[in-house]
Amino acid sequence: MTEKKRIVSGMRPTGALHLGNLHGALQNWINMQPDYDCFFFIADWHALTSDYENPGNIKKYTRNMMIDWLAAGLDPEKSVLFVQSRIREHAELFLLLSMITPVPWLERNPTYKEQIDALQNKDLSTFGFLGYPVLQAADIIIYKAEGVPVGIDQAPHIELTREIARRFNHLYGRVFPEPDTILTEISKILGTDRRKMSKSYSNAIFLSDSPEQIRKKVSQMITDPQRIKRTDPGDPSVCNVFTFHQLYSPTDLVAQVDPDCRSAKIGCVECKKKMAEHLVAYLSPIRDKIEYYKNHTDQVEQVMAEGSDKARQVAAKTLAEVRDAVRI
Amino acid sequence: MTEKKRIVSGMRPTGALHLGNLHGALQNWINMQPDYDCFFFIADWHALTSDYENPGNIKKYTRNMMIDWLAAGLDPEKSVLFVQSRIREHAELFLLLSMITPVPWLERNPTYKEQIDALQNKDLSTFGFLGYPVLQAADIIIYKAEGVPVGIDQAPHIELTREIARRFNHLYGRVFPEPDTILTEISKILGTDRRKMSKSYSNAIFLSDSPEQIRKKVSQMITDPQRIKRTDPGDPSVCNVFTFHQLYSPTDLVAQVDPDCRSAKIGCVECKKKMAEHLVAYLSPIRDKIEYYKNHTDQVEQVMAEGSDKARQVAAKTLAEVRDAVRI
Ligand code: SF4
Ligand code: SF4
Repeated sequence: MTEKKRIVSGMRPTGALHLGNLHGALQNWINMQPDYDCFFFIADWHALTSDYENPGNIKKYTRNMMIDWLAAGLDPEKSVLFVQSRIREHAELFLLLSMITPVPWLERNPTYKEQIDALQNKDLSTFGFLGYPVLQAADIIIYKAEGVPVGIDQAPHIELTREIARRFNHLYGRVFPEPDTILTEISKILGTDRRKMSKSYSNAIFLSDSPEQIRKKVSQMITDPQRIKRTDPGDPSVCNVFTFHQLYSPTDLVAQVDPDCRSAKIGCVECKKKMAEHLVAYLSPIRDKIEYYKNHTDQVEQVMAEGSDKARQVAAKTLAEVRDAVRI
Repeated sequence: MTEKKRIVSGMRPTGALHLGNLHGALQNWINMQPDYDCFFFIADWHALTSDYENPGNIKKYTRNMMIDWLAAGLDPEKSVLFVQSRIREHAELFLLLSMITPVPWLERNPTYKEQIDALQNKDLSTFGFLGYPVLQAADIIIYKAEGVPVGIDQAPHIELTREIARRFNHLYGRVFPEPDTILTEISKILGTDRRKMSKSYSNAIFLSDSPEQIRKKVSQMITDPQRIKRTDPGDPSVCNVFTFHQLYSPTDLVAQVDPDCRSAKIGCVECKKKMAEHLVAYLSPIRDKIEYYKNHTDQVEQVMAEGSDKARQVAAKTLAEVRDAVRI
């Protein structure tokens, strides 16, 4: 039997998870659990890089994110689930990698200036924000990850991680594997307004939404924009509601909606109502688990404590090798 | 009885200490021991900011520096003597302070570009070198220092430390005092060639030099450059040997050398010989202690371990307050 390949990935605690998150990173992680040696962490220190002026919710968001993870199917028996800031070794490796990372590598990082432009309301000209990819490299290589499942937008960061690992190995002797980028499928799901689903656009359906909230949000979804009147034929291939159907409705219903929409046999109101019930049913067990964990936060704390202990053991072992290599 | 004011200062482990170091920072520290609550550390992580490409000697230099400290008169019963890299909390606070430190604060740091220019043979365009003052701020405020004894060249860094402490307190509530700069007297002693005494100029007399080495180096010292022939009168006020006399010879000898030099009654060879013997005598007990500790490295290790334990307790307590303040 061959060893499973180790992967590491993290998520910022930015608030309740929505369907876009689920069908993006999270479902990919859940699917990888049987085949990989998985380390998944909540990147609470990273949240500070952009939210340092208002960190009030990071702790709460961290616990809620772990609840969402557990409810959605991440399993502490299969994966190491932990909280970044509880593994102090990340900070020490960040410091050591700082010493060998050229500033131009960070300045040419394509997402750096993009993000500074995108988040004009925040002052991101900080040393920590510039060094974000250095901390990310530390997060990954401290577990000697061989792969990192990320979206395409994060691929340049992983390339930088590989370069930093290579430079360390070159200067001090080989300690770190260079992790491969494992591109994760991007969720095709859009927000209720057809923009990218995002908490900040108020167009998201959350894993924790109640059936009433789901029905209301679905009823407000924008469908095929060309279909104005009930009698206009629609085009499911451009309709976000149809994408939802494909994810949540049984195949026979999907097979039926397609022609019925194109022939205007079914109206959008009815079509959405049907989909909403399947989405409610799909989220129902997840929501039940969220409820359960919200009432048993001691169990959640235990998962985070045990996962962080496991992670710390691995990280501490790597750090000992790093100190030996740097001879400090 | 009023509480003693806490001071923190560090020194990079760059090799054996010489008389310039002794009469600069070190003697100042020794003199401050009775009046202050002193934390003195060997800045081995800082050594990496400029020597990351060749860190092979940092560990050895760290132990040798502690030996020089103990031999010169730093006392583990009076001061907390420790090694920076053994206090992981510095790295964590460095990371957290990174998040709130604007890059322009670091770029405008006058020593930053100076050093990059001065050390052209090293590639210092690293993220860690840019962030040197952030690590320094963490080193200082983690002990809630109220004062930092430094030379005038380091004063801008302490100003930056104060600004970072102020910004943290402003964002998250008051945790840190803003430490005062305590300017230390600068050693008037020059190297044997009349340039600044420095290991890299090969003009230094080390605390660990043998009597033979001292006599030889003193015999090669440049004196009053105007005094060419034995019969030329000299000027002690421009002679580095006379500065040494003032430090190491008895006052009656100093009082006699001055007129004897001005009247050419004494020659430089004889004058140096007299001074050399007093320097040998001055360094003799220090050298004996260095010998002793080199043969009892377990005691040195114990000093470093106990000092680092004391420092860690204070640092860990501050970090707990920091995490509470940042609410992470
Ligand atoms: S009937 Fe359904 S698939 Fe067709 S446009 Fe309306 S909501 Fe979309
Ligand atoms: S006699 Fe002594 S003090 Fe005078 S110049 Fe020579 S070395 Fe200097």
